[in-house]
Amino acid sequence: PINPERLWASLAAMAEIGATAKGGSCRLALSDEDKAGRDLFVSWCVEAGCEVAIDRVGNIFARRPGSDPTLPPVVMGSHLDTQPTGGRFDGVYGVLAGLEVLRSLNDRSVATRHPVEVAVWTNEEGSRFSPPMMGSGVVTGVFALDEILDKIAQDGARLGDELIRTGYAGDAPTDHPMHAYLEAHIEQGPVLEVEEKEIGVVVGAQGQRWYEVTVTGVEAHAGPTPMRLRRDALVAAARMVTAVQELGLDTPGDACATVGILDVHPHSRNVIPGRVFFTVDLRHPDSATLAAMDRRFRDAVAAIADAAGVRAEIADFWRFPPTPFNPTLVDRVRDAARGFGFSHRDIVSGAGHDAVYVAGKVPTAMIFIPCEDGISHNEVENIAPADGARGAAVLFEVLVATAGF
Amino acid sequence: PINPERLWASLAAMAEIGATAKGGSCRLALSDEDKAGRDLFVSWCVEAGCEVAIDRVGNIFARRPGSDPTLPPVVMGSHLDTQPTGGRFDGVYGVLAGLEVLRSLNDRSVATRHPVEVAVWTNEEGSRFSPPMMGSGVVTGVFALDEILDKIAQDGARLGDELIRTGYAGDAPTDHPMHAYLEAHIEQGPVLEVEEKEIGVVVGAQGQRWYEVTVTGVEAHAGPTPMRLRRDALVAAARMVTAVQELGLDTPGDACATVGILDVHPHSRNVIPGRVFFTVDLRHPDSATLAAMDRRFRDAVAAIADAAGVRAEIADFWRFPPTPFNPTLVDRVRDAARGFGFSHRDIVSGAGHDAVYVAGKVPTAMIFIPCEDGISHNEVENIAPADGARGAAVLFEVLVATAGF
Ligand SMILES: NC(=O)NCCC(=O)O
Ligand SMILES: NC(=O)NCCC(=O)O
Repeated sequence: PINPERLWASLAAMAEIGATAKGGSCRLALSDEDKAGRDLFVSWCVEAGCEVAIDRVGNIFARRPGSDPTLPPVVMGSHLDTQPTGGRFDGVYGVLAGLEVLRSLNDRSVATRHPVEVAVWTNEEGSRFSPPMMGSGVVTGVFALDEILDKIAQDGARLGDELIRTGYAGDAPTDHPMHAYLEAHIEQGPVLEVEEKEIGVVVGAQGQRWYEVTVTGVEAHAGPTPMRLRRDALVAAARMVTAVQELGLDTPGDACATVGILDVHPHSRNVIPGRVFFTVDLRHPDSATLAAMDRRFRDAVAAIADAAGVRAEIADFWRFPPTPFNPTLVDRVRDAARGFGFSHRDIVSGAGHDAVYVAGKVPTAMIFIPCEDGISHNEVENIAPADGARGAAVLFEVLVATAGF
Repeated sequence: PINPERLWASLAAMAEIGATAKGGSCRLALSDEDKAGRDLFVSWCVEAGCEVAIDRVGNIFARRPGSDPTLPPVVMGSHLDTQPTGGRFDGVYGVLAGLEVLRSLNDRSVATRHPVEVAVWTNEEGSRFSPPMMGSGVVTGVFALDEILDKIAQDGARLGDELIRTGYAGDAPTDHPMHAYLEAHIEQGPVLEVEEKEIGVVVGAQGQRWYEVTVTGVEAHAGPTPMRLRRDALVAAARMVTAVQELGLDTPGDACATVGILDVHPHSRNVIPGRVFFTVDLRHPDSATLAAMDRRFRDAVAAIADAAGVRAEIADFWRFPPTPFNPTLVDRVRDAARGFGFSHRDIVSGAGHDAVYVAGKVPTAMIFIPCEDGISHNEVENIAPADGARGAAVLFEVLVATAGF
């Protein structure tokens, strides 16, 4: 029902913005590149006859009217921002699959009852500004708008200022009404590829808990300070990184545990580090197990700090519980895949997505497609064009079934 | 023989330049603060009637003439640059004890046969620019001048440009003639304090080997990437940091092993690190043991990389062998301490000092004084004024004995 070549060409055109040496994309949230990507998307939506609204946190909603103007829209979407060494499909695929569905509705002059929208959510990645999923979090009331506008980037910029600078400080209210939300996305993991499934029917997302840990030891000279008298913050932090990995390995049932950022102070070759800051990301599909991981993590950090004679402080940074999607919509995704004869399986999302926050407010579902070697958050991230087309076809079917005609 | 109050007042005045919140000093090599510290020193030397020469790598030599103008000078000195969170005595003490000896020669109108100089060596710390001991390394032919002028700081500045900017790109040749070199310094470790000795008779310095390690894994998403499929560069690097510490702990005889810098790439909370850079500093007083540490370090890194499925490259960054000082001068230090009735012991320097490079060229000795809790490279670094006075008195005696009168 969609045009695979047009979808692929749009993905390729978007990938030229912020293209990186190894074939990936770098469009950090609200950077110049992110602005250029947004501008391109908006120009395509205007060409497709959409009305484009920007809300106060910079989310973009491109609307195709429905036959009943009193009804709230069925929204498709995802994000255009990327990781520092990001791929061309993470987020982008969901946005452009949504645009492709909308363009196909135009091609076939389908009149839906509900309006249909494609959304671009602000800062889904949570890399330049953290935490992730900010735009969808504000719209669903998880975050206060003012708190988000005041967030400071790794590079020191303020989010509200960057919205103004890039021209995406809109005036639409952030309590955007939605009838339902559908997000297509690459799996970002290896399951579909390994099991040779074409579509992932996403039944929900695993829960996440993010932390910030600060380890404080005693700065001292790397030479005349005997090993046994040291209170080396990095030596302690290294053991904590190992403990975090072991926690992920030992916990049954798809646990994940990652340290993504680690900063050493005073950052001098011949000074025993006096302070280390690092971030921790724990994930599990089961609430009770995630809580147990939290306890074991805290215990491990405390025990290591004790043994090393350093102080460790853990701050809760961000979290969301395991989140099921809407059963009716999930069934529609499964039925559409089956209808097309696409091989498929139910799957739990290992990543957070804007759909997780939106699911707390309106019926929501996600469609996964495989990605090469299961690799994402990497410049070499890739998909097969046929998989991209299949996901967009399923999205088309579920959209039409949900928007009514 | 010296004026303890004047020495203490000079140390206090210098500590006001680049003073830090916790009572330390931050005068990174060739920063604005380092320039201000150098300017103050030069003004004191001019007041004391010295001729001041600056060489092409920014070393300062303040000269008090001797009675025989054909003889090369006996040089006292150390450095004024500090670590990012440095103390008020590391380096500074040796420079200002030298100045105090020179002022005392003036007070007593002592005419020495050899000229007497106080030297300030450029970038001893090796923090902003690395490796350490650059100024003394150029003067003794360890480093080529051009190579050093091209060194790039952690903040991106070029050393040669910073010399010009701060007004310390002098025109004196760098092959400065010296008859002998004497450096007073705080111990920077706990031995003298624990053993209640007032003077450390430094018989030599332990050897050092510095490395840069780059670990390359595969960036991937912190959520949907199963733990067992990861090639996490930070998880591997953390085990290497632990191995470096164990190497230091297990090697007999005052081994030191430190990781001072560790940088994570791409530095995003939800990306499995694809690359980690870290520095390693290994030290031992015995050559063969240091070589054995080198081998064990390389083996450990290779084994950990192998097990973690990552690549690790080790680059040799800097090194010097265990370095004995001149026996005649060492005896003079011991004799002077004994003459004053100061408690003393022979000691091996755990740190590198400009004296290590100078020892390769002319007869050299060092005098250590205790520092509080053995702490250095830390803002809380401290000494007792009486210890400062004792070290300067010993320096005076050895200087006069060596410069002749
Ligand atoms: N899809 C994605 O990368 N989302 C960011 C939040 C997360 O790390 O799960
Ligand atoms: N004294 C001192 O801190 N020297 C720098 C070289 C070293 O780290 O040993």
